[in-house]
Order: sequence, then C-alpha cells, then structure tokens
Amino acid sequence: MTYETIGNHILADFWGVDFDKLNDIEFLKKEMAAAAEASGAKIVAVQGKAFKPIGATVLILLSESHLSIHTYPEKGYAAVDGFTCGEKVAPEKAISHLMGVLDPEKAFMKKVVRGTGELEITPLNME
Amino acid sequence: MTYETIGNHILADFWGVDFDKLNDIEFLKKEMAAAAEASGAKIVAVQGKAFKPIGATVLILLSESHLSIHTYPEKGYAAVDGFTCGEKVAPEKAISHLMGVLDPEKAFMKKVVRGTGELEITPLNME
Repeated sequence: MTYETIGNHILADFWGVDFDKLNDIEFLKKEMAAAAEASGAKIVAVQGKAFKPIGATVLILLSESHLSIHTYPEKGYAAVDGFTCGEKVAPEKAISHLMGVLDPEKAFMKKVVRGTGELEITPLNME
Repeated sequence: MTYETIGNHILADFWGVDFDKLNDIEFLKKEMAAAAEASGAKIVAVQGKAFKPIGATVLILLSESHLSIHTYPEKGYAAVDGFTCGEKVAPEKAISHLMGVLDPEKAFMKKVVRGTGELEITPLNME
C-alpha cells in the first residue's frame, strides 16, 4: 500500500482577534477540532496547552497531517497552520471555519504545495 | 507581560530517506526531541503516531510553537516543519539536526517569517 505524498499546507496569520477567544484553551480545542472535521480530515489526537500567564497552543494530529494554532491574546494574534496530505481533504475549509469563529480583522495567508518536489507557493482561494 | 509575535517557520521536504528510519516511531520521537533541544526550544509534550500499515507522525509542542514530521517510508519522503516564535530559538538548528540523522538525498526548503504582517518568504541559510 502506498499513499500520495502531495500535501496542501496553508499558513495563516490572524490579527485583530478577540482576547478572550485567544486565551480560552477549551474554546480553541473545540473549534480546532471542528475545523479539522470541516476539512474532511480524521482526528487522531488533540493536544492543548494554556501558557502562563497568557497564550495557548493547540496541535491536532490528523490521519492526513496536522492543524496547529499558537495564540498571543495580548496582541490579538494567532498563527494557524492547516497541513493535509492527499487530495480528499481541503485545509481551506479548516481555515475558513477558524476565520468564521475567530473573526480576525486581518488575515495574511500563503498556500504551499508540498510532496511534489520544489515547495510551490500557490494562490489561495478562500470561499 | 507580552511576547514577541515574530516567528520563523521552516518548511522542509526530505526525499531519499531510508525506509527503516521513516517507519520507526521511537527513532523519530527521539530525534525530533533532540532536534527541538538543538534549536534551543523547550519541549512541552511529544506526541507520536505510527500509522498502519506504514508511516508515522510526530508533533512536538514547544513553549515556542511546534515541530512536526510526517513520513511516507515507501516513498522515502518526510515533510518536516520547524516553527519557533521569538528570536532566541533557531529552527534552522532543528532542521540541521534532522538532516544529519535522516540524511536525505534531496531537501526542498522554504523559510517564512510570520507574526509581522505579510508572510515573508526569506532565504534559508543552513550551516
């Protein structure tokens, strides 16, 4: 059995996000899991850490790679990654879900196609 | 208390890696932890999953963001990410460590500076 190495990786920096959302580890775990499900990925494990005095990280191990978020509530900033291998899972849907619930004032994003040779920066089409 | 949002994120695709290394979850967990330490990061948690029939993922939650590897032993391929916030930790050192132990025939890499506005693709200088 072999798997396709092709993967789609979206790097998304969100700014202007509400402090309370970014500092609520349970909210972030729930919404990251919902984002994974929205993308069509299968969740293997969810790991979260609330840092003291502030900030949080959630890492989701997927059958199809990973989702991550690192938050800086005092800056209204979150660094989000959605990396999924194969063609059946769409990390755009995970990012869209998070944009919907985190409601950033600004989002800077790149999409990188991996697993095919040179890493290719490609246009990102969010619905 | 506030933290600097600036982060350095290296995306590295390794090809031509030995099958046995890429399919050995304990080896990968050990070397990913060693890579994190080499970068100067603090490990919060190490999570690993050996997939059936083949392949593995290791996610390391750091105080300074994360390291990840997803492997396709049958293709000799591994997708590695080293993402660290702040200026005191160098993801290049984590990637260098992994290149040393995985010994890929080819590596395709990009470095992205995050947490400062537009995501900036920057030159990657590996020692």
